[in-house]
Amino acid sequence: MRKVIYGGASSLDALITGPDESIDWIRRSDEGAELTREIWRGADTMLMGRKTYGFALRMGGPIRWGNVKTYVFSRTLESASGGAELVRGDAVEFARELKGREGGDIIVMGGGELGTALIEGGVVDEIGLNIQPVLLGQGTPAFRPMNRRVDLELIEARAIAQDCVVLRYRVAG
Amino acid sequence: MRKVIYGGASSLDALITGPDESIDWIRRSDEGAELTREIWRGADTMLMGRKTYGFALRMGGPIRWGNVKTYVFSRTLESASGGAELVRGDAVEFARELKGREGGDIIVMGGGELGTALIEGGVVDEIGLNIQPVLLGQGTPAFRPMNRRVDLELIEARAIAQDCVVLRYRVAG
Repeated sequence: MRKVIYGGASSLDALITGPDESIDWIRRSDEGAELTREIWRGADTMLMGRKTYGFALRMGGPIRWGNVKTYVFSRTLESASGGAELVRGDAVEFARELKGREGGDIIVMGGGELGTALIEGGVVDEIGLNIQPVLLGQGTPAFRPMNRRVDLELIEARAIAQDCVVLRYRVAG
Repeated sequence: MRKVIYGGASSLDALITGPDESIDWIRRSDEGAELTREIWRGADTMLMGRKTYGFALRMGGPIRWGNVKTYVFSRTLESASGGAELVRGDAVEFARELKGREGGDIIVMGGGELGTALIEGGVVDEIGLNIQPVLLGQGTPAFRPMNRRVDLELIEARAIAQDCVVLRYRVAG
């Protein structure tokens, strides 16, 4: 079955952006880029929340990459641009339904709100963090409060270039 | 010079206790125990905040281990028991002064409040986390908000028994 994957670059204090949405602390390397390519190779769908969508628009980045289908979850947006499809319903239900269909992996982008909701809702299969060698002190958390504990199984822990560490987990259960 | 070391077991969502101060999610292993012994071998001093001190007392654990000198930072406590010495002054200044004296390594225990204050104050030399394969959802953060970014250098990233990962960093600069 297709997997739902949440993750990205994170500081050691588990933040995915610094103050003022800064991402200049994220270290680039060939090894990191290859890992990202590897994850996207199996994917054909991308999910994002309203804030990440807004952030992506502000960054001028494409909301839709190649043949990847993009869904934006929001109850307040009127429409989504850049090739994305707006979803107004419950994100957990939508993601669960999507998993039941044929297709490639589903990547949950950015902001910890959607990621955490999907983890708590039991639809995320894998979590992957690229831990950067920095404490940001303030910013957007990778994980939000949840009402339950989620056990993980380590798939891989690997130091890559630039003092970064890739941690990949399977969600247990 | 003697080092100031902050760290301990942490969930992937960077919490050091779960709801109700639970620590039953921390996985024990010979490898983990050997790592802890290694860190303590070079240490002769332990620093803790009032909350960690209270937690240690409630757990019935010794506040003072062997020849390790223990300092508890608090402006509200009247006295410290269990062989600990109460410090009412500024923790950063105290730790900096302590570092200037001869002695072994200084371990900063528990709650992220003291640890983060000392990191932000520039007196912590090493950070070591034993990342447990779990998202706790709620609890005590390993790191609190800071007003500055702190760069780190990776010393070691190593998967140990029970799906745990040890990450050790040198504080840069």
